Amino acid sequence: MQPLNRTDCEALDLADPLRQFRDRFHLPQGLIYLDGNSLGAMPKSVPARIARLLEAEWGDDLIRGWTKDGWMDLPLAIGAKIGSLIGAGEDETVVADSTSVNLFRVLGAALKLRPDRRVILSERTNFPTDLYIAQSLAAMMGADYTLRLVETDEIEAALSPDIAVVMLTQVDYRTGRQWDMKRITALAHRAGALTVWDFSHSAGVVPLDFDGDEADFAVGCGYKYLSGGPGAPAFLTIARRHLRPTEMPITGWLGHAEPFAFEPGFRAAEGIGRARVGTPPILSLAALEVGVDLVCEATVPALRAKSIRQTELFAALAAQELDGFGFSLASPAAAGQRGSQVSMRHVHGWPITQALTAANVIGDFRAPDIVRFGFAPLYVRYVDVWDAVAALKRIMVERQWDQPQFRAAPTGVT
Amino acid sequence: MQPLNRTDCEALDLADPLRQFRDRFHLPQGLIYLDGNSLGAMPKSVPARIARLLEAEWGDDLIRGWTKDGWMDLPLAIGAKIGSLIGAGEDETVVADSTSVNLFRVLGAALKLRPDRRVILSERTNFPTDLYIAQSLAAMMGADYTLRLVETDEIEAALSPDIAVVMLTQVDYRTGRQWDMKRITALAHRAGALTVWDFSHSAGVVPLDFDGDEADFAVGCGYKYLSGGPGAPAFLTIARRHLRPTEMPITGWLGHAEPFAFEPGFRAAEGIGRARVGTPPILSLAALEVGVDLVCEATVPALRAKSIRQTELFAALAAQELDGFGFSLASPAAAGQRGSQVSMRHVHGWPITQALTAANVIGDFRAPDIVRFGFAPLYVRYVDVWDAVAALKRIMVERQWDQPQFRAAPTGVT
Repeated sequence: MQPLNRTDCEALDLADPLRQFRDRFHLPQGLIYLDGNSLGAMPKSVPARIARLLEAEWGDDLIRGWTKDGWMDLPLAIGAKIGSLIGAGEDETVVADSTSVNLFRVLGAALKLRPDRRVILSERTNFPTDLYIAQSLAAMMGADYTLRLVETDEIEAALSPDIAVVMLTQVDYRTGRQWDMKRITALAHRAGALTVWDFSHSAGVVPLDFDGDEADFAVGCGYKYLSGGPGAPAFLTIARRHLRPTEMPITGWLGHAEPFAFEPGFRAAEGIGRARVGTPPILSLAALEVGVDLVCEATVPALRAKSIRQTELFAALAAQELDGFGFSLASPAAAGQRGSQVSMRHVHGWPITQALTAANVIGDFRAPDIVRFGFAPLYVRYVDVWDAVAALKRIMVERQWDQPQFRAAPTGVT
Repeated sequence: MQPLNRTDCEALDLADPLRQFRDRFHLPQGLIYLDGNSLGAMPKSVPARIARLLEAEWGDDLIRGWTKDGWMDLPLAIGAKIGSLIGAGEDETVVADSTSVNLFRVLGAALKLRPDRRVILSERTNFPTDLYIAQSLAAMMGADYTLRLVETDEIEAALSPDIAVVMLTQVDYRTGRQWDMKRITALAHRAGALTVWDFSHSAGVVPLDFDGDEADFAVGCGYKYLSGGPGAPAFLTIARRHLRPTEMPITGWLGHAEPFAFEPGFRAAEGIGRARVGTPPILSLAALEVGVDLVCEATVPALRAKSIRQTELFAALAAQELDGFGFSLASPAAAGQRGSQVSMRHVHGWPITQALTAANVIGDFRAPDIVRFGFAPLYVRYVDVWDAVAALKRIMVERQWDQPQFRAAPTGVT
């Protein structure tokens, strides 16, 4: 086979049915941004949307904005759009709070539905905040509740009769490995357990069938592939069959059937609206909606098709250009088994990531040794994939990473 | 005594040492806004601040914004400023989540510090979400935990030895009545209980001495007198003596000592930073900081002095102009005993509030019969007080409220 070159990548961009979407994002000239799995790029229409929100809505309408400008409806309206991206039905998804707080709530709700069981099962390598949340929830529910951690390949065998909930992140933040949600859900149900899924690295880029797979609960993040902005509000999804019996563990006034009746006792709203707690941050919600609308317009199947081509291209170029430099693939080799990222292990992963950033290629590092590249198909080009690998090759050939300024202690943000 | 007239109010505005602050807020021409206790007006510099955040920070810096633009520090930096407004010391306050979620967390932390007690004490008329949160927390902690509700004047007598926590809102949302935080805290401590205060209607307008009064925990809202924008993030405060032993009930990755070490087990950060959970909404935080800065610049003592004059003026004008129309004062008669609002009961409170809104005077209604006027001294003028009472008088004299369009069912937002 002929080696791939940059011209091949240019041809792929020309043929890309999603290529017009890149123009709708604000991207700095010359920057190759392969970290949309950490913080998605800004849609160009966000500043105008927010300026209007500030001047005409908050500024002029003041308190009337809650009804006149539809602020009160945003959590359910955006939730419905996100629901459509993850295969959830109507009235199963709402935008609220952070992924961590939402996870606490759905985990708590799930535990209440299995009152005779005491164990939350997860994998040791799950995203740490998910583990901290489960640990703190278990501590709060009483001494006999526990979080049981096993290795990734031990999950299925660990489905013993004391498991109340299986909590997994659908796409692993480090390796990009995907869980088969249908299979694990079926096995969990057969063992009498419920499933709680974290879609943070899946929503907006991986096809999901929450309802079809009979999943029970999910949460996810708004600021990665949904391009909702730094710290964008998160979402949570509850299968309709669990909605009515479910009492959310943190009941706030916006989840009340009649918040403005100001009753001293809680009465849950119908549907997923009951999963709201406090007053939502409207500026951040409005920005999130812009990103979600772009994903809905592009459609997840089209994004997934491009994402698979891009991760395959990256893996092929890495094999072609980086052989002998000490990288090993941390992601599954089959594109269908990973999300929209390719991760590679390297003993000098941290300084390599730093040298890449200095060369205007942004990926990121995850301890202890993973260099992670995310491909947000809404705005990443095939030539970006080429240029990133070329920059990485230069860094390795010239040992650019081996400089003191790149060797300082790691920091960063997913 | 001579009756007061509009000219007297104009003179008060001329002599107002805070009068320059009004020009720094976006206020619609002709609108009299007495609902800053529900949603504060927008500082004029917010749109430029947010535009810069969007274009130069999110847009250009992307993931680097967390360190380069100081996003990661915002919750503690703004928390420190809010702390200075409520008499809290350094490293006792952080901005996070919503008031409701924060209340869940500090209440849970307080209960853990009194493991041999099972009762949260509050008043029946406390803001409903506070009660819902306490109810759901008690339900989660186990069957023997309860929320005990008593009448306002029964709180002191109810401080029995089974009370773990006294939970009160410092300024009542309906009547504006203030609790004496020093007195209640001392009584609670003598009874072996801790205190949790909701400062939502206090922060930024009422002098508070969290440390001096030896209060234990507090939460509060960012979008009322702090003018942080619709659904602005909330804050929470923990007395330093409780920080080290306190385990927060919802532990998330941003409260970890080293979030980017990605450890499977939680280790709390030093200080109030441990009270962070998930990734905070940066757009909403940046807007909040602008409002908080204005309050810090004006200073709470100066704001309180003007607020007292304005609530006294309103009460005096109401007595002078509205006699015989069926209003009765719902707020304490002494200005020192109320926050920055005056509430009046009227059997037709709802349609009266609606007719006022139609006349471009915005106060608000709280069931069953309270018409509530908030005076945000940063931007409310003394002539606004006059004009509001004059409009109210016209509505009563002409029975404007008695029209079908004003009698539809109540709605609204605090």
